[in-house]
Amino acid sequence: MLWLNSGSGKMQNSLSISDGDGCSFGPLVVLELAENTEAEAITWLLSRIRDKQQNGGADLLVEQLPLGGQEKQKVNRNVFLVGSTWQRLLNGAEDLGLFKEFQDGTMRGFTNANRESFKEFQGEGDGFLSISECQYIIKHELDTLRAKDETHVPGYLKVRLYPGKSVIRRLQSKGILVQYFPLHDKGELKRLSSSWYKKIKLSFQPLNDIRHYFGEGLALYFGFLEYFTFALMPMALIGIPYYLFDWENYDKYVLFAIFNLVWSTVFLDVWKRRSAQLAYGWGTLSRKKAFEEPRPGFHGILGLNPVTGREEPTYSNSKRQLRIYLVSLPFVLLCLYISLHVMKIYFGMETWALSIYNEDPNFLTSVLLFIPSIIYAVVIEIMNLLYRYAAEFLTDWENHRLESSFQNHLVLKVLVFNFINCFASLFYIAFVMQDMALLRHSLATLLITSQILNQVMEAFLPYWLQRRRNKKVHKRVRRMMGDQELPMVEQVQLESEMNTYLGTFDDYLEQFLLFGYVSLFSCVYPLAAVLVVFNNITEVYSDAFKMCHVFKRPFSEPASDIGVWQLAFETMSAIAVVTNCALIGLSPQVQAYFPEADTQLILTVVTVEHILLAFKFILAFIIPDVPKHIQIKLAKLEFESLEALKKKKMLEAAEISKTNK
Amino acid sequence: MLWLNSGSGKMQNSLSISDGDGCSFGPLVVLELAENTEAEAITWLLSRIRDKQQNGGADLLVEQLPLGGQEKQKVNRNVFLVGSTWQRLLNGAEDLGLFKEFQDGTMRGFTNANRESFKEFQGEGDGFLSISECQYIIKHELDTLRAKDETHVPGYLKVRLYPGKSVIRRLQSKGILVQYFPLHDKGELKRLSSSWYKKIKLSFQPLNDIRHYFGEGLALYFGFLEYFTFALMPMALIGIPYYLFDWENYDKYVLFAIFNLVWSTVFLDVWKRRSAQLAYGWGTLSRKKAFEEPRPGFHGILGLNPVTGREEPTYSNSKRQLRIYLVSLPFVLLCLYISLHVMKIYFGMETWALSIYNEDPNFLTSVLLFIPSIIYAVVIEIMNLLYRYAAEFLTDWENHRLESSFQNHLVLKVLVFNFINCFASLFYIAFVMQDMALLRHSLATLLITSQILNQVMEAFLPYWLQRRRNKKVHKRVRRMMGDQELPMVEQVQLESEMNTYLGTFDDYLEQFLLFGYVSLFSCVYPLAAVLVVFNNITEVYSDAFKMCHVFKRPFSEPASDIGVWQLAFETMSAIAVVTNCALIGLSPQVQAYFPEADTQLILTVVTVEHILLAFKFILAFIIPDVPKHIQIKLAKLEFESLEALKKKKMLEAAEISKTNK
Repeated sequence: MLWLNSGSGKMQNSLSISDGDGCSFGPLVVLELAENTEAEAITWLLSRIRDKQQNGGADLLVEQLPLGGQEKQKVNRNVFLVGSTWQRLLNGAEDLGLFKEFQDGTMRGFTNANRESFKEFQGEGDGFLSISECQYIIKHELDTLRAKDETHVPGYLKVRLYPGKSVIRRLQSKGILVQYFPLHDKGELKRLSSSWYKKIKLSFQPLNDIRHYFGEGLALYFGFLEYFTFALMPMALIGIPYYLFDWENYDKYVLFAIFNLVWSTVFLDVWKRRSAQLAYGWGTLSRKKAFEEPRPGFHGILGLNPVTGREEPTYSNSKRQLRIYLVSLPFVLLCLYISLHVMKIYFGMETWALSIYNEDPNFLTSVLLFIPSIIYAVVIEIMNLLYRYAAEFLTDWENHRLESSFQNHLVLKVLVFNFINCFASLFYIAFVMQDMALLRHSLATLLITSQILNQVMEAFLPYWLQRRRNKKVHKRVRRMMGDQELPMVEQVQLESEMNTYLGTFDDYLEQFLLFGYVSLFSCVYPLAAVLVVFNNITEVYSDAFKMCHVFKRPFSEPASDIGVWQLAFETMSAIAVVTNCALIGLSPQVQAYFPEADTQLILTVVTVEHILLAFKFILAFIIPDVPKHIQIKLAKLEFESLEALKKKKMLEAAEISKTNK
Repeated sequence: MLWLNSGSGKMQNSLSISDGDGCSFGPLVVLELAENTEAEAITWLLSRIRDKQQNGGADLLVEQLPLGGQEKQKVNRNVFLVGSTWQRLLNGAEDLGLFKEFQDGTMRGFTNANRESFKEFQGEGDGFLSISECQYIIKHELDTLRAKDETHVPGYLKVRLYPGKSVIRRLQSKGILVQYFPLHDKGELKRLSSSWYKKIKLSFQPLNDIRHYFGEGLALYFGFLEYFTFALMPMALIGIPYYLFDWENYDKYVLFAIFNLVWSTVFLDVWKRRSAQLAYGWGTLSRKKAFEEPRPGFHGILGLNPVTGREEPTYSNSKRQLRIYLVSLPFVLLCLYISLHVMKIYFGMETWALSIYNEDPNFLTSVLLFIPSIIYAVVIEIMNLLYRYAAEFLTDWENHRLESSFQNHLVLKVLVFNFINCFASLFYIAFVMQDMALLRHSLATLLITSQILNQVMEAFLPYWLQRRRNKKVHKRVRRMMGDQELPMVEQVQLESEMNTYLGTFDDYLEQFLLFGYVSLFSCVYPLAAVLVVFNNITEVYSDAFKMCHVFKRPFSEPASDIGVWQLAFETMSAIAVVTNCALIGLSPQVQAYFPEADTQLILTVVTVEHILLAFKFILAFIIPDVPKHIQIKLAKLEFESLEALKKKKMLEAAEISKTNK
């Protein structure tokens, strides 16, 4: 039985909730059912969770949260704690194909059969899996708990089931299951946060510890954030003297643009290798993806799934295409039109402010010059936010069967809009108005305003709301229990009221836009890189803080790379080649070389640009995505499994020939 | 025992060599050792081939070619026939992970355990594998026959071996093994050729039969050739009226250029899907690639292979890089320089011919106008040929460990040179001289001359040489045997003297250049597509003929796509977007729209070009590489194997819990 003592120190991973507390096992995951759930349904669900695997159950431990005596307060009593035995978790790890470090230092899929050969396996296997891995396994087992022959959830005639339907997903989409989340581990969290953000000295983040506590997906995000920030350092260092000595000579930016070009190409290729290295060390690089279940919100008429042969909801692809092309696409286009219209208003305001300043140039009117940009930056942020919700609603309505397809459509919608919304005005200023002074001014205002807004929206606001809520909960729990301390109950209550972390989407999106500001136009405003570096240093701290204290602990998500974002960043860097070449072509320095023939200047710039783009593709093609030493390790693993298979075949053949004789 | 009767009709696949002929089994593969091979080495090799697999042998049947009585002629007597039992071949098929059609119509990896569930499996499995599959399996078994504890080949102290070294490869690189090749099957070959090229009516090629006889690699080449030809039809059909009605009005090519643009993008994306469909039907789409052995020519000092942990020759990567960058690269650049120099001479000749024609325009001097282009075309072909040999020599000298790496470096070298050599003059004429009449004239001459030369070099010359040689062999064999017929011996002798087919490289290269002529510049010479269509129709016939009658039967090569050529064609089509946009910009029609502002014209063209290139990438990204219905089949297979694994685990767990009770 999995029993996690915080004080014993024997196990590396221990939950702080312990000492009996009225629960007979170490709880890992909390299930919260709706307050008015029928008793019949609860009994049924608990028995399905507890049932042996052979009978189609999840074979987990589950108990009600012990709330103690006679309370009449409005507290949801339908909160359940889920735990597991070590053996069950090890079986789950094998089912999921979790990779762990082998004795020889390579990463291999865990199997119970040769578990003794894994590096950190001791005794019965306590502490072999990290708490976040255990929670991930439990989530997977709950998610794949399937209906057998039930036609509906007991007590709810209308909540229909069919063989093979995920019980948890149905309960969730019908609102019977309010939420389920993994518990924080106070001890480990304290250790993590002190090595992560509770120190002032500059150093690398403890990525392995972050991965250990939050999983690979989040650790890769922080790894990328760190890498991006460090990669910006040289650009920031070059930017400062540029800024100091050439403030009004914005014709000397050619060298900086060339630097930008090379940097944005190399940056992403090196990251790919670094991410492969991280993912290999975490065992997610060569792990096979699990078979994808339909997403919770997916609905449709019952039909046959051609892949599994099971009955499940199906939704015709042509209907979805109609929704995408007849509703979503026009909506996106409309939003883009509105965004461009707002841009036009901004330019109107800009001209108006300038005319006032020209009429009577004093301090007040010179401040007024900045107002339009600031207002525009705020409006952009608000529009991005509103559009984000609309895009999510629309993509949800498109009724994608798989989470990955949903994500791709959402990312595409959001990226296109954000790109146009944030950068259209800069493109217009740079290439239509060709006003480099305004470009610099506008870029600076946009960047600074959006950074300030982001930090407020992302960390301080949720934290403040959180604190207010926590105080209330603390009070309620105290009142409920008299003055008696009941730390586990309190922890569960507190965490269940925390905000839910919605994934890395918004964090990556922010980095994507910052990357855009830096790579597209920073040559005319060299301080951009400096600003982004400062932003990202505070971002690390505020993101780390919000992960540890503002949000519920998220289930760890295995990831081998940053997924669709790699493509997004690469697209941006290809666009950066175009803009930097164009900016070089517009620079007075270069134009001086072609005093009379505009045509020749343009042709030269275009030719150089094509060569650079071709070079970029060749470079991306030549640099291997996975470092050599990891390639060798992967090949070794494959070779060994082939050899093992051959040996097995040979033995079988020998046995057959023996019995035939 | 595998016994292939040609007359019985019971087996679908039968070799025509039969009726005893002095060989106790149906021979499939011929091994030819050097005439002066030591008897000791022969005995050792044969025993290793015959030895059981448990003892590290290949477990195949092998016998000397029965040459009959007292001949004193100079005939190599060290020719051996290799065959196998059906059971051995089925085991080999399983080892190799060959995919065959399952009862339910999906393609699955063959396993002996559930062989009865495969569609065409009957009785003991005779005829389940095609002859070419059998030969491929035998080749694989011979190739992976490894040295055990021998330190050298018996009889050859200097031909050293070490445990794990492929015996056949060592013998081959030392010249002891002259060649080994699969035998043609006269009956099947006759049937194949009559359905393939011995008919005049236009129809699709029997791709499945070709694959059945020659393997997937070659079938995919012919599939691509056919697809390319059909895809050119619309362009050819549009080209004819263009040619007929606008002969001297070469300013009306804008529409044609736009058509070209779209066509070259769609063409390759659709081919990817078609090739996936073909490869799925042939069972190579999801087959895992076998572990790659070092290529025969690879040499180096003995060291530890980090992947297999075996001792084998190693060659330091930095040395190879030095050879590549300090020798190969300068050599390629030198060749490019020479090629450009030849181009300069060509333009000199062109000017000279024009000046003579202008002095005295009559029929003779008007013929003279074509002479420089024709000479240039011939010189280009000769340079391509010479360079081809040099590139192969250099790449061999670079000492690549793996065949795939060798191929990539060879393809890159050859493609870059061929591209410059063939197209540099056209680029110069089009964009520097901007002389569309000369471009048309030059393109036509280059295309027609190179087509004629190619057909001669590729099919007629080898065929003629072949016939002369065959007559000699016929005579010799007759003389040797008196007048007694000995068909099998004769067949083996004949085939061993046929040319060896060196793979699809040159065939794809030719198509690549033709694709270049059509997609880059055909808008100014619409007849190009027509010429290429005619060329390819005769190409199908001559290629088919040469495969059946000029060359030794090649070992079949499993392939799931056209490999590096897909990338090469895609690169060409991206370049085609650029050239077609530029040609549109140069057209008088378009220039009429921008009467005064050259700058604006160029900017417009560049913008359109960027949009088109972006659109191209998006399209390639959106169109799935594998058609939906095949994706479903693949997903189904994966799902079933996951389910089977899960069930197996569950059963094991149940058993363990039973025994524990």
